Amino acid sequence: MATYKRILIAIDFSPEGSKVVEQGIALGKSSGAELSLVHVVEHVASIYDSEASFPEIPDIEKRLTEKATAGLEKVKQDCQVPDAECHVRCGAPKHVIVDLAKETNADLIVIGSHGRHGLQLLLGSTANGVLHLATCDVLAVRIGR
Amino acid sequence: MATYKRILIAIDFSPEGSKVVEQGIALGKSSGAELSLVHVVEHVASIYDSEASFPEIPDIEKRLTEKATAGLEKVKQDCQVPDAECHVRCGAPKHVIVDLAKETNADLIVIGSHGRHGLQLLLGSTANGVLHLATCDVLAVRIGR
Repeated sequence: MATYKRILIAIDFSPEGSKVVEQGIALGKSSGAELSLVHVVEHVASIYDSEASFPEIPDIEKRLTEKATAGLEKVKQDCQVPDAECHVRCGAPKHVIVDLAKETNADLIVIGSHGRHGLQLLLGSTANGVLHLATCDVLAVRIGR
Repeated sequence: MATYKRILIAIDFSPEGSKVVEQGIALGKSSGAELSLVHVVEHVASIYDSEASFPEIPDIEKRLTEKATAGLEKVKQDCQVPDAECHVRCGAPKHVIVDLAKETNADLIVIGSHGRHGLQLLLGSTANGVLHLATCDVLAVRIGR
């Protein structure tokens, strides 16, 4: 019986999201898994197809990518996981996360679920999409408000 | 940083479902969590509201419950988890599982996801329901066909 060999943790840098990082890393340490951290910069340009009318969009994405890269390095240091791989990519989060899990042979994706909506807890759309598209196990870490 | 204290594993006794049991138990052992095992006997009578016309239904459910109780005891022995709590209940699986997680203070539910449908992997309806209703973390173990 084995647990996991490579865990991909999706990080959104929200204050509540720190629970996802902590849980993913704790699981990685207890199971001896290798870790990959990913942050997805949502691809603004593709939504509006507007690079011509908004020439500053590629620059915004570039700066967001740099900021996220520094952010993941800080997570590595703060959580003492110096060997974790860091990935920052632009695109639709659910597809980027699922594709990266396949590329890196991750056998577990750790992702946060968002939000209290009315009387029932509902999954965020990224978590829901990852759960439905992933070809490996998915741990949905419940995030309270 | 801690992982989990009590893990609730949903067991359906399908051949592919053994992966869910193995993964849940391995995770329990690596994190030192207490384990609860649950099998839900689907509540036939409530679907048809027909206890009067099918008087044998309560007897069928009783026998299914006895069989499942013996099945969970066998899992405990085979997987060497003598201290695991066993629960067999009748009802709608997603509601029974979510309610039992609350009752037992489980902080993780482990459940199998089912099925390849067309080009895309889809979650089974029980897994999907649990993921949306649970108030704790949920690990969806991918089951291939």
